[in-house]
Amino acid sequence: MIRKFTFGTPVTTDAVVLSLPAETEPVPFFSVSRSGEQVTLTRKMADEDCLFGLGESVRGINKRGNLYRSWNSDIFNHTESVDSLYASHNFLVFFGPDCLFGIYLDDPGRITWDLGFTRMDTAVITSENGQLDLYLLEESSLTELARAFRRLTGRSYLPPRWAFGYIQSRWGYAGEDEFRAVVEEHRKRGIPLDAVCLDIDYMEDYKNFTWRKDTFPPLDQFTGSMRQEHIRLIPIIDAGILCQEGYPPYDSGKAGNCFCKKEDGSDFTAAVWPGFCVFPDLLREEVRRWFGDLYRPLLEAGVEGFWNDMNEPALFYTPERLEEAFRRAEEIRGSGDYESLWFLKDAFNSLPNNPEDYRSFYQEADGRLMRHDKVHNLYGASMTRAAAEAFRRIVPEKRVLLFSRSSFVGAHRNGGIWTGDNFSWWSHLKLVLQMLPNLNLCGFLFSGCDLGGFGCNTTEDLLARFLQIGVFTPLMRNHSALHTRDQEIFRFSAWEQMKETLRVRYALLPFLYSEFMKAALSDGMYFRPLAFDYPEDRRAVHTEDQLMLGEGCMIAPVLEQNASGRFVYLPEDMLLIRFRSPEDYDLVPLEKGDHYIDLSLREFPLFVKRNHPVLLCPGGEYTEALDDHTFTALYWADRTFSFDLYRDDGQDPDPGLDSHLTRLSLSPDASAGPGSGVAISPLVL
Amino acid sequence: MIRKFTFGTPVTTDAVVLSLPAETEPVPFFSVSRSGEQVTLTRKMADEDCLFGLGESVRGINKRGNLYRSWNSDIFNHTESVDSLYASHNFLVFFGPDCLFGIYLDDPGRITWDLGFTRMDTAVITSENGQLDLYLLEESSLTELARAFRRLTGRSYLPPRWAFGYIQSRWGYAGEDEFRAVVEEHRKRGIPLDAVCLDIDYMEDYKNFTWRKDTFPPLDQFTGSMRQEHIRLIPIIDAGILCQEGYPPYDSGKAGNCFCKKEDGSDFTAAVWPGFCVFPDLLREEVRRWFGDLYRPLLEAGVEGFWNDMNEPALFYTPERLEEAFRRAEEIRGSGDYESLWFLKDAFNSLPNNPEDYRSFYQEADGRLMRHDKVHNLYGASMTRAAAEAFRRIVPEKRVLLFSRSSFVGAHRNGGIWTGDNFSWWSHLKLVLQMLPNLNLCGFLFSGCDLGGFGCNTTEDLLARFLQIGVFTPLMRNHSALHTRDQEIFRFSAWEQMKETLRVRYALLPFLYSEFMKAALSDGMYFRPLAFDYPEDRRAVHTEDQLMLGEGCMIAPVLEQNASGRFVYLPEDMLLIRFRSPEDYDLVPLEKGDHYIDLSLREFPLFVKRNHPVLLCPGGEYTEALDDHTFTALYWADRTFSFDLYRDDGQDPDPGLDSHLTRLSLSPDASAGPGSGVAISPLVL
Repeated sequence: MIRKFTFGTPVTTDAVVLSLPAETEPVPFFSVSRSGEQVTLTRKMADEDCLFGLGESVRGINKRGNLYRSWNSDIFNHTESVDSLYASHNFLVFFGPDCLFGIYLDDPGRITWDLGFTRMDTAVITSENGQLDLYLLEESSLTELARAFRRLTGRSYLPPRWAFGYIQSRWGYAGEDEFRAVVEEHRKRGIPLDAVCLDIDYMEDYKNFTWRKDTFPPLDQFTGSMRQEHIRLIPIIDAGILCQEGYPPYDSGKAGNCFCKKEDGSDFTAAVWPGFCVFPDLLREEVRRWFGDLYRPLLEAGVEGFWNDMNEPALFYTPERLEEAFRRAEEIRGSGDYESLWFLKDAFNSLPNNPEDYRSFYQEADGRLMRHDKVHNLYGASMTRAAAEAFRRIVPEKRVLLFSRSSFVGAHRNGGIWTGDNFSWWSHLKLVLQMLPNLNLCGFLFSGCDLGGFGCNTTEDLLARFLQIGVFTPLMRNHSALHTRDQEIFRFSAWEQMKETLRVRYALLPFLYSEFMKAALSDGMYFRPLAFDYPEDRRAVHTEDQLMLGEGCMIAPVLEQNASGRFVYLPEDMLLIRFRSPEDYDLVPLEKGDHYIDLSLREFPLFVKRNHPVLLCPGGEYTEALDDHTFTALYWADRTFSFDLYRDDGQDPDPGLDSHLTRLSLSPDASAGPGSGVAISPLVL
Repeated sequence: MIRKFTFGTPVTTDAVVLSLPAETEPVPFFSVSRSGEQVTLTRKMADEDCLFGLGESVRGINKRGNLYRSWNSDIFNHTESVDSLYASHNFLVFFGPDCLFGIYLDDPGRITWDLGFTRMDTAVITSENGQLDLYLLEESSLTELARAFRRLTGRSYLPPRWAFGYIQSRWGYAGEDEFRAVVEEHRKRGIPLDAVCLDIDYMEDYKNFTWRKDTFPPLDQFTGSMRQEHIRLIPIIDAGILCQEGYPPYDSGKAGNCFCKKEDGSDFTAAVWPGFCVFPDLLREEVRRWFGDLYRPLLEAGVEGFWNDMNEPALFYTPERLEEAFRRAEEIRGSGDYESLWFLKDAFNSLPNNPEDYRSFYQEADGRLMRHDKVHNLYGASMTRAAAEAFRRIVPEKRVLLFSRSSFVGAHRNGGIWTGDNFSWWSHLKLVLQMLPNLNLCGFLFSGCDLGGFGCNTTEDLLARFLQIGVFTPLMRNHSALHTRDQEIFRFSAWEQMKETLRVRYALLPFLYSEFMKAALSDGMYFRPLAFDYPEDRRAVHTEDQLMLGEGCMIAPVLEQNASGRFVYLPEDMLLIRFRSPEDYDLVPLEKGDHYIDLSLREFPLFVKRNHPVLLCPGGEYTEALDDHTFTALYWADRTFSFDLYRDDGQDPDPGLDSHLTRLSLSPDASAGPGSGVAISPLVL
């Protein structure tokens, strides 16, 4: 059951696809209070209550005990102190002995979620706008709650199948030679690879929708020659448009009056990579159409995937703020006040993404001018929407890969996301593991992190463990920042071990793709907290470092440096597959309960429920080479069971579910493995 | 066996107390290379080799796989990217199937420890000075290596017994009223408390060795009235002396020519809290005597403990660097270079603790002028030494509490340390757990972290879990920064649970004090990695979140938010004591192996080897009220066994070990507990 409560006159966000009548208060489960424009929802929690949701945010799977802010932010230092990341996903589920419901706040402004931070027993949720649709979801289970939320907000984005291949990326690949060298090194060593990202270096002076000519051949030639190597190119697109006459995107946007305005009616400008930029007013349909059409030349030149970046939107500084910082600095300098001098740096550190700047410009929404901060969290989603709408117009026959840094609920229908600029930290291994199930709950199934870590220097063992998580994430991209240590697999002494990890990904790819598509097409979740499958099992509910994957699997990666294994809790009997390569693995049937699993640096585990298979295909160095007719099924069975495998052409934008399923029947008689009922069974479909 | 190899003409550091002849190269176990002034030691490592040591540093107990820099730094953001903290403890142990030895680099300059960071299989250690004594220690076990290092560097500092009591601290207690209110609130609620720290707010304008008169009574009155409440005051002392004529410490230091000099012979100045300061040249004995005598009025007014801070030394900025930052800012501003503008903030962010500033002044060492950076890591240790030498002169009859932020090996004889300005992060729970055994290995037994976290806002559950670790750390201080959430126990709804945690500390205090003193007086370790007790047990060697404590105990605190328990590896049979209060605990005998232990927020575990006791005294609200004649012994015995309890007057500076030991004989016959051989046995000594 989904109910809707409307506060004030909310702006249309495109988050919700279901039209529901608004009910009048009281809102069940909460007390509602108002203060100025703010609306606050308060609820007492029982000791045992858990909270799931909020998609992309730091800290645990269970969000309880902390404070979060919905305020899309370009924030580089994802420590535990960070309250906001690049996205706002305002869906939160309350789950406890006496409660099971979800709330969705359809509100693109700032929201504070005090989830037991100030008082352990109280959740206090405050909308600054105070103008919102509040949806209340009640279902019989966590899984059904997730499904209901998808019914409310629409089907999750479907990427092309090749996007499940391995993607190499780095800020700093500045010309054709470097791209070719990277691709060749992978091919030469047999390291699987499907795509390479083009970071801002491919543009002329970082200008969107330009193509650098001094170090690159024409784009169509480049995409064409790369396709012969079975490599796709994935260019970055930023949000800002350089304010420069004679630069076509600026001229056409200016002519169409497409940019966000300051109070005095002039275009709002702020510095980003190319210099002072203007920002498309993307809540307007005609602006989205204009902006989306800018992708057309790239599509026509053979580009099949994009990443949208800097779309919180990130602002380095405005001219006004910069002048103010200098003024402030001069004042402090003259004052001889040593503490002020100490805090002088704050005048400059507060330049980027300054809240005042977000209050200094306007967007048009529902035909009225709104101060940007009131709709701030929609910006990235609008950019994704502009691109996706263009793709549907321009290449309606196929799926285009799209993943964005910033997002809002609704964007999950139009693209995937990556989890932003993480670091080469071991704690960020755990962070992505804890984000993924909450992202899935909020509709974002196609996701992954920068494997190896974006900022600071990785180490060989950290990259190896990152890749072992990446084997299972739909988006599997190795990405790193300029001036950090080179992070391509082949740079490291144990590259052959990492290659085997990638080979497992490719052997599993048809199976993982099938699990993904079944989840996406049935409004399900690819990754889930254990609580969703075992809501009665208190241990499972509190497990923060293991995830359910697809219908019958569980992952439990190693998250610690120098570890020789890890503890795993099995909520039921499961088969452990300890992978070293697609050909070299252990099959260990394990009983429900606690286990310590030995896992050397080259080993990683996948757990499978009884009477459920994992399918390995013969593998290949790129997705098109994968054979999805020939498999080895691994399982632990005590009865004959069936399994539905999803296969399609990998690009139909609306493929349907049932027509692409093949039902396999598997039996314990096929057992050829080491233990009773454990089977390694060849299959030809 | 300890061997010494001398490179160049090293400066005297006071780290080593043993005089050994220098041997000539080759140095066993390493290849040695030179480049310019640098000396580099290189060693191939086997896959199984572990590295212990480096005292205060981030990341794991096993230091392998990362890069560390010995360079004492006032650094506020202890993420995984940080290479240096406040201290340099240059002792490192190599432990593997085919190696067991330690190296100590007696070198107060910058050292880089690339411990498998660049290449997983290679350790590369580089001294920038290239002038050092290298000590090579070989013994038959890890424990003996630790003991040999203490033989080389001298006995660990002994604090007074009252310093094991609970200490409340906060930056921002600005007057008598606030102190009294804090103390009263503890006493009123029966929360044990022994001392309160005075942060910089107690001084006049942050000037060292002054006493603020507008909000405080005269110091001797204040210490006197607090002692009636059984509370000690622990003032902070910073390193810098305000450059101000008429301010007695400045005048006397100036008259004695006591301050560090720039190349032109003028005093080096840099801004710190009180304004532009000069810095005592503490490597000179006469300067230490002058500086140490500044503590005298405080001691005579009844102060019995100090914390030395800002002694890396921290520098906010020098006048020269500040001018340069403004010049740079103006240049960038004029350039219109947007990327430079983006990095403008770096001009100001690089003001504090700038490496150039540390190269711009000089200290006298061994009668010669040395550029400060060559002896940088000795500064904090010299300040501690100045204070400790003064205490021995002024109050030779008793132990004075002293703990410092910055340190170097050698300072472990003169004082304790706290682990610097941590954050209210769950990851910092684990960080202190992982630092403590390496601190012990390097000689620093009296240590602890800012419980609850210094920077950013704590939560109730985080403070509760911090206190549960704090129960076992010799220094147990709750400390927090100005502008963060109030962090005293009584601020929180579940304060009664935290009070019970403190009551367990006080019930255990005579036992923990005994374990500490036995370790300190026998050159042993109070906290140890499990590898030290179970070197043959690969699982124990790789355990990163449990510690051996004293002779027979092990701790395994909960380190995760919202956890309802944790996994524990028992390397042998142990008795679990699950504490809720001194009167309310479970005794659970557990077999060697893997266990999941349920631990609600109010519960914490202590594990005890078989035939070893834990002793609980009747408790009290301050250490002087503790009765160390009456105990309840908890143990799991299968035979009669003996245990030596250490008791002394808590203040004799040189108490000796044997004369203070009482041998207890305990027998399984006394069993009254729930399991076979598990005893709750009353004792009167």
